[in-house]
Amino acid sequence: MSDQVGGSPVAIVIHGGAGTIARARMTDEMEANIRQVLKESVHAGHRVLTKGGSSTDAVAKAIRVMEDSPLFNAGKGSVFNADGKHEMDASIMEGQDLNAGSVAAVSRIKNPIDLALKVMTDSEHVMLMGAGAEEFARRQKFTMTDPGYFHTDFRWQQLQRIKARETAKQDQDDQWFSTVGAVALDRNGNLAAGTSTGGTSNKRWGRVGDSPIIGAGTYADNNSCAVSATGHGEFFIRYVVAYNICQRVELGMSLAKAADLVVNQILLDANGEGGVIAMDPKGNISMPFNSEGMYRASVNTAGEQSVSIYRDEADPGTTLTGNVDH
Amino acid sequence: MSDQVGGSPVAIVIHGGAGTIARARMTDEMEANIRQVLKESVHAGHRVLTKGGSSTDAVAKAIRVMEDSPLFNAGKGSVFNADGKHEMDASIMEGQDLNAGSVAAVSRIKNPIDLALKVMTDSEHVMLMGAGAEEFARRQKFTMTDPGYFHTDFRWQQLQRIKARETAKQDQDDQWFSTVGAVALDRNGNLAAGTSTGGTSNKRWGRVGDSPIIGAGTYADNNSCAVSATGHGEFFIRYVVAYNICQRVELGMSLAKAADLVVNQILLDANGEGGVIAMDPKGNISMPFNSEGMYRASVNTAGEQSVSIYRDEADPGTTLTGNVDH
Repeated sequence: MSDQVGGSPVAIVIHGGAGTIARARMTDEMEANIRQVLKESVHAGHRVLTKGGSSTDAVAKAIRVMEDSPLFNAGKGSVFNADGKHEMDASIMEGQDLNAGSVAAVSRIKNPIDLALKVMTDSEHVMLMGAGAEEFARRQKFTMTDPGYFHTDFRWQQLQRIKARETAKQDQDDQWFSTVGAVALDRNGNLAAGTSTGGTSNKRWGRVGDSPIIGAGTYADNNSCAVSATGHGEFFIRYVVAYNICQRVELGMSLAKAADLVVNQILLDANGEGGVIAMDPKGNISMPFNSEGMYRASVNTAGEQSVSIYRDEADPGTTLTGNVDH
Repeated sequence: MSDQVGGSPVAIVIHGGAGTIARARMTDEMEANIRQVLKESVHAGHRVLTKGGSSTDAVAKAIRVMEDSPLFNAGKGSVFNADGKHEMDASIMEGQDLNAGSVAAVSRIKNPIDLALKVMTDSEHVMLMGAGAEEFARRQKFTMTDPGYFHTDFRWQQLQRIKARETAKQDQDDQWFSTVGAVALDRNGNLAAGTSTGGTSNKRWGRVGDSPIIGAGTYADNNSCAVSATGHGEFFIRYVVAYNICQRVELGMSLAKAADLVVNQILLDANGEGGVIAMDPKGNISMPFNSEGMYRASVNTAGEQSVSIYRDEADPGTTLTGNVDH
């Protein structure tokens, strides 16, 4: 993996969501499949970087792999809302110039991260939503995807279970926030971050979570760090999680300390479940979570890779440049 | 105005937008009318506070007065989007517990700030948008307002002018971002902030600005300050303006210095036009703007009031507790 030639060392970290999941509920096959897609995603993004591509392109590539997999709550595999439809959100930001793009509640875009990227590169705006965002997509020659593409039996059954138990507490496995995200550092020393999600199962009333909110779910600034978040979105909005970490880093705190403070102290005290992936301009990686697990994978500046789900899995690289801290 | 009995001293500051406006373009009558509504708004909010009401209620009350006036781009008087319709945004946050509510792109809600408040108090969510937000409103017994209510000839002519000049640069008077907002401190020492807007004239594609984004257009935390912003929304999102100021205050910077740094240095360097109103837990007020003017009014902790539009108008109270800094 360390076929880097010239320029700054590159690194990438991805997540496929965080939450409470008992190992007993996870089949070996499902776990193996998830680890496989995480690996494919992080490698695909890393390849973009080693070939000299931008961190923005690496982030979009890694996210696209997870959006195309039915195993994550983004793109194909997105959860159903209360009306049995899909409303997907995505955002992307680059650290060099703080350019950003975001879409909320799109229903017919195969890869929402691509549309967020297009909003960033080809509109004067940062955030577009709903039918308007899809009208923009049409003008930009995006193909409108048949809503049936996003149907997966797994998510449909999940919706039926939640509806059946509506008055009761949600099923435990629905406490998994399987938003996806990626953060990368490219050869030019530029950071980027992106996030994509189907939101929460059975969601109503045009609810918007943190994923499409620049500052909450996604932030990137070469002067501090890049962050993608996953968790109980309302808390991540109220605590402006991604930017909260970045500003602390900008004002002198280490990445590991800032990310840990926000996730394992501020959010934990508020009962805001979830986690983040974060990277600073040196390629140091941090991926704290206060939930039972977080799907995650990384390739650090030394080329060491990790693919993990549970809390007790050690990620490599903690003693090298390009630290991986929990 | 200083009929305060018991509890902490109270204070309130409001804005009715910022931008580039030449005095020559403003008729005496229009200017007098605007100043009159600013005065009514800030007094209405202040009365809530002196009667022992919460900062949240004071903020909502002050904003409601401006939403009900056709002179501001919020509620009645909102600009038209490219389709000749209205899509309004609002958000509110309270500093005691960081509760927040927000709505984006509602078309049939007379006072969007009331719906943002209802999202905060009566839903599990922070942000609702579009038709879904209006469905939530119906369930909460909000009356659906006829879209014709929001029609004003002034805004209709503005849209026609912009459309006619679409390929050219926008008319100068359309560079006024007349979002409204309020920030208050109540007898219990609690801060609150709120913002309401019709967005930008001729907007397309479901564009969302900073006003409904917690962290960008609105933020409140008793441990730092409360902020409501007005300006070129895309910049205010990318620089997470409201929270950017609050976190600096939390980490030790004075309110005046933090607000000035973000508005007159960070935003100005990025060509992000606009301003903010801000208040800390002691009732110190700051209202910096980097545009030619900002509609603004305040009543500080000493009961001194100000109503101003242009840069060269001095606001009172700079030497008293409850400073008013520009």
